[in-house]
Amino acid sequence: MKILVLNSGSSSIKFKLFENQKAVCSGLVEKIGNHQSKIELKILKTGTKMRRDTHIGDHEKGLKLVNELFEESGILKDLNELDGCGHRIVHGGKNLTEHCLVNDFVLEEIHRVSSIAPLHNPAHLAGIKTMMKAAPKVPNATIFDTAFHKTIPDYAYMYALPYDYYTEYNIRKYGFHGTSHSYVSQRVAKLMGKKNEEINAISAHLGNGASVCAIENGKSIDTSMGFTPLEGLIMGTRCGDIDPATIPFIAKAKDLNPDKLDTMMNKQSGLYGICGYNDFRDIISEIQNGNNLARLAFEMYCYRLAKYIGSYFAILPYTDALIFTAGVGENAAAVRKLTCEKLKHLGIEIDEQLNEENSSGEKEISTKNSKTKIFVIPTDEELEIAKITESLIS
Amino acid sequence: MKILVLNSGSSSIKFKLFENQKAVCSGLVEKIGNHQSKIELKILKTGTKMRRDTHIGDHEKGLKLVNELFEESGILKDLNELDGCGHRIVHGGKNLTEHCLVNDFVLEEIHRVSSIAPLHNPAHLAGIKTMMKAAPKVPNATIFDTAFHKTIPDYAYMYALPYDYYTEYNIRKYGFHGTSHSYVSQRVAKLMGKKNEEINAISAHLGNGASVCAIENGKSIDTSMGFTPLEGLIMGTRCGDIDPATIPFIAKAKDLNPDKLDTMMNKQSGLYGICGYNDFRDIISEIQNGNNLARLAFEMYCYRLAKYIGSYFAILPYTDALIFTAGVGENAAAVRKLTCEKLKHLGIEIDEQLNEENSSGEKEISTKNSKTKIFVIPTDEELEIAKITESLIS
Repeated sequence: MKILVLNSGSSSIKFKLFENQKAVCSGLVEKIGNHQSKIELKILKTGTKMRRDTHIGDHEKGLKLVNELFEESGILKDLNELDGCGHRIVHGGKNLTEHCLVNDFVLEEIHRVSSIAPLHNPAHLAGIKTMMKAAPKVPNATIFDTAFHKTIPDYAYMYALPYDYYTEYNIRKYGFHGTSHSYVSQRVAKLMGKKNEEINAISAHLGNGASVCAIENGKSIDTSMGFTPLEGLIMGTRCGDIDPATIPFIAKAKDLNPDKLDTMMNKQSGLYGICGYNDFRDIISEIQNGNNLARLAFEMYCYRLAKYIGSYFAILPYTDALIFTAGVGENAAAVRKLTCEKLKHLGIEIDEQLNEENSSGEKEISTKNSKTKIFVIPTDEELEIAKITESLIS
Repeated sequence: MKILVLNSGSSSIKFKLFENQKAVCSGLVEKIGNHQSKIELKILKTGTKMRRDTHIGDHEKGLKLVNELFEESGILKDLNELDGCGHRIVHGGKNLTEHCLVNDFVLEEIHRVSSIAPLHNPAHLAGIKTMMKAAPKVPNATIFDTAFHKTIPDYAYMYALPYDYYTEYNIRKYGFHGTSHSYVSQRVAKLMGKKNEEINAISAHLGNGASVCAIENGKSIDTSMGFTPLEGLIMGTRCGDIDPATIPFIAKAKDLNPDKLDTMMNKQSGLYGICGYNDFRDIISEIQNGNNLARLAFEMYCYRLAKYIGSYFAILPYTDALIFTAGVGENAAAVRKLTCEKLKHLGIEIDEQLNEENSSGEKEISTKNSKTKIFVIPTDEELEIAKITESLIS
């Protein structure tokens, strides 16, 4: 089966083509609507890269160029040859709690949920509609970041705000990174010789966005992101948890309107807000230079993460595995080390040597005596989306 | 030594008189500035109650009436007979990190910190000034709710907001209920035959406001309240932790200004916001009547608390004791039960029978096998304030 996976942003389209669950090529259309727009494609088998710098006015033009590069490279004659297209959708809202094939209801719902995911859902919708127009016979599937978290119980997803904020505005915890948390926990179940529905794990997806997920019997029972991807951990530029009363205080002190508050919390905070860097390679080299704010940002990040792991360790009856994934989780050994050091007395014991080893694949980094195993699992959301798309089509 | 303890609110003065650390009488001046204002005093030895309904225009008039009732009852001829007066101060801010005797710097600082504690500090200041005028020779001591938390490390008290919010506006976690957390942890140290500086405990002060505190070697290392007393647990009418991005969303959706947002989160949320009740006796009886929102509020409350306990259990190298105190903590056995049930696998084992027993004093409610002991300790912030005041005077 040939499956195209699309992740449409407001000015970009990330894409990856799979043939029988093997990635054939991947690429990116970026700066759509801008004069510096371009498309890049990499053929994975040979490493060949193709690139075109051209004005790409909208998503439709972007997808047309994807099609052209596919044809030019001989990968695919036409998008209509695809067996299916899987779209990554950040927010499914209250009603789209299962990955599904696209129909009118799905399109309407994704549109409706745009009010609570204004940065993502309109772009996703543009991506789906463009694909439907470009290849009318190819079935489209929507894979929601929120879907894995549909099993979170009400006492964990509700906020203690006036109840009508839930009934009228659907304000509740939704959670994100579901496809990643699901994928890495399934990988760990396999590595531990367990069925998916037997695994209890705490999964830490640490990318530029970051979230932790408590997984019981293969199902999400809690996660650190909430109504939006702002809540929870400290992230690259996002503040994560703060005293909610600071926001009206800041609004008054700095005369910021709601949009500016949102931008401040999402784009000017996090590691960057504390020390001016949001890449851990920079932060660690700054610490070595004696930069105290870099030290502070690093310790805050690991401490918050350790507390979340601790709280999920408490609510899970037992924890088979702690999983680190995504950019920071896979590469920043120092983050894994400082985070796990505090947790040794819980039976979560990191093997420092295994943790430091430079290797890019899946690995176990706990000591032999560790009651909870610790894994580093490279995430592969696109592969997971391709698999789900295949199964929805079949 | 005769010590008067004062807790001055915006329209009330709570007071308690101690003689050699024994409470002699307690009372309340309420609705100051209102036509229904009154003063009540209870003599603890005899149970005699005295009351006067009269217009009390300001704190000065209130304290004058306290003096009159003291004289009338024969307890004290004049406020000038006191050896000292201890004032409860909610917020000491960045600089007042130690309980201390009042001087000009202290008065200025309490005033300065009013910008971040507008509901409490101006009233406290009025209380101190009134006392200084009424009894010029009596030394006044200020006992800060925030002082016990001065030992929280920077990586735990900083928020991942732009760093200049800390340097310019002093936005950081301060923590509250310090006098109570300190008092109950000292009591438990004594009960366990340990020195204060040897005790590792998690203290849950659950009143109408509620906070959890992680105590290592007798010192606070983290607590759930933050910049204000809004952060953390779900409370009677306060929301505690929420996704910070909900606030700009709500501000736009409901067109609420910062003051209204603050009121909504502090007065219309929490248990009350979810189910319309904020007293656990009502909530539990509503659950028995099949009220699903009461069930939800109850489960949310205990679940949030269990997660905080779990996170502090993780960051403490070991935990001698889990302590429940204040109205809900001392009286709501059902809250203690549901919260602890989830924590059994951590070695925190509640004895259901001991937990249910109706008794008003200090008690241990864990099983013999429980690795972490569980205690119910009635808090006594006034006694703690009186003791600290005595030691500051001496």
